Amino acid sequence: MTDRDKGLQLYTYFRSSAAYRVRIALNLKGLKPELHFVHLLRGGGEQLQPGYKAVNPQSLVPALVVEGHALAQSLAIIEYLEETHPEPPLLPKDALGRARVRRLAFMVACDIHPLNNLRVLRRLRGQYGLSEDALKEWQQHWITLGFTALEALVANAPETGRYCHGDTPTLADICLVPQMANARRIATDLSPFPTLVRIEQTALSHPAFDAAQPKVQPDAE
Amino acid sequence: MTDRDKGLQLYTYFRSSAAYRVRIALNLKGLKPELHFVHLLRGGGEQLQPGYKAVNPQSLVPALVVEGHALAQSLAIIEYLEETHPEPPLLPKDALGRARVRRLAFMVACDIHPLNNLRVLRRLRGQYGLSEDALKEWQQHWITLGFTALEALVANAPETGRYCHGDTPTLADICLVPQMANARRIATDLSPFPTLVRIEQTALSHPAFDAAQPKVQPDAE
Repeated sequence: MTDRDKGLQLYTYFRSSAAYRVRIALNLKGLKPELHFVHLLRGGGEQLQPGYKAVNPQSLVPALVVEGHALAQSLAIIEYLEETHPEPPLLPKDALGRARVRRLAFMVACDIHPLNNLRVLRRLRGQYGLSEDALKEWQQHWITLGFTALEALVANAPETGRYCHGDTPTLADICLVPQMANARRIATDLSPFPTLVRIEQTALSHPAFDAAQPKVQPDAE
Repeated sequence: MTDRDKGLQLYTYFRSSAAYRVRIALNLKGLKPELHFVHLLRGGGEQLQPGYKAVNPQSLVPALVVEGHALAQSLAIIEYLEETHPEPPLLPKDALGRARVRRLAFMVACDIHPLNNLRVLRRLRGQYGLSEDALKEWQQHWITLGFTALEALVANAPETGRYCHGDTPTLADICLVPQMANARRIATDLSPFPTLVRIEQTALSHPAFDAAQPKVQPDAE
């Protein structure tokens, strides 16, 4: 019986970086959910319609349905996958190492990504009249601020290896790589972040990251 | 030997809701760190000065120093405390329950709080000229949006008890209560969220939450 048969269902949008994180984690764990595509722009946003709201009242992707239970929030989903499918591990064994990996992950997931989310950009444009240039500057500001701290933490740290923490992918890389894709999409200057760029390139050569990329998703445009 | 002797040091600011979360968790675990106060407004912000940047290059509070290791990101710190001091538990035992609690916590920690952080309000005011009324409206918008989804998830859910999940405090309550304090400070209408208000009142009657409140901190103004 495959996981698809066991009722694992992922609600995803190719360009959502939170969905991208969960796609990477599922690939690393070797899980193959049934896919449902939620188009965040079409018809004013399919995530705002009653069908998807019944899955996730917060109207954000991704959601993962596990045996009839709808899980949401990408990091809560990934921690669940880690607890229920421990191999390969996405967190180190030692508590201090786990705290370091989660810290790096939350620096992206709490302090960069939410500020640049589609709904935030829509509000800045619609309610406060920010121009497209101002919106780009807004996004680049938070990315650069967050990446500067991230680069300082990973460059030359003894814990850093081929990936953010050691030589295998962790939750930190799962958050970093989609954020790098967002940064590239708006032409952010990444030259101050050579360690982050190196780790991104390493990760993208891993089949689990490569197959999770937005451009190769069935709903990619 | 007390925890203070073992070199547990908390960098905190009374009004920071991320620091408030960690204070609650430390109190629940019965840990008493040495306190260092980082004033976020004085002198342009003590968190931006080299002394604190050496502790946390991200210039955000809180940070927790454990035997010479500086941990940061409130949720990474609390997960560390949970792993190293399992009693009383701040997460349920079952994987689906843990996913529910983390989901509720991240709904606050990722999708409400970062949008209303001091540095974000400063940038909206300084760079884009938002008025004080517009800033208040901005904050209330994200709080109301997030609380609407939270209320929908906790009201009438069989998992909800005296607290967000069962009858004892979890990571979800630790995130909810400081966010409620922020909501009250800017006079957000909480009447649509009776379950959240009830849980807040339950939590504030618990000594660990009560003693963590901003107004009773040594650096309160």
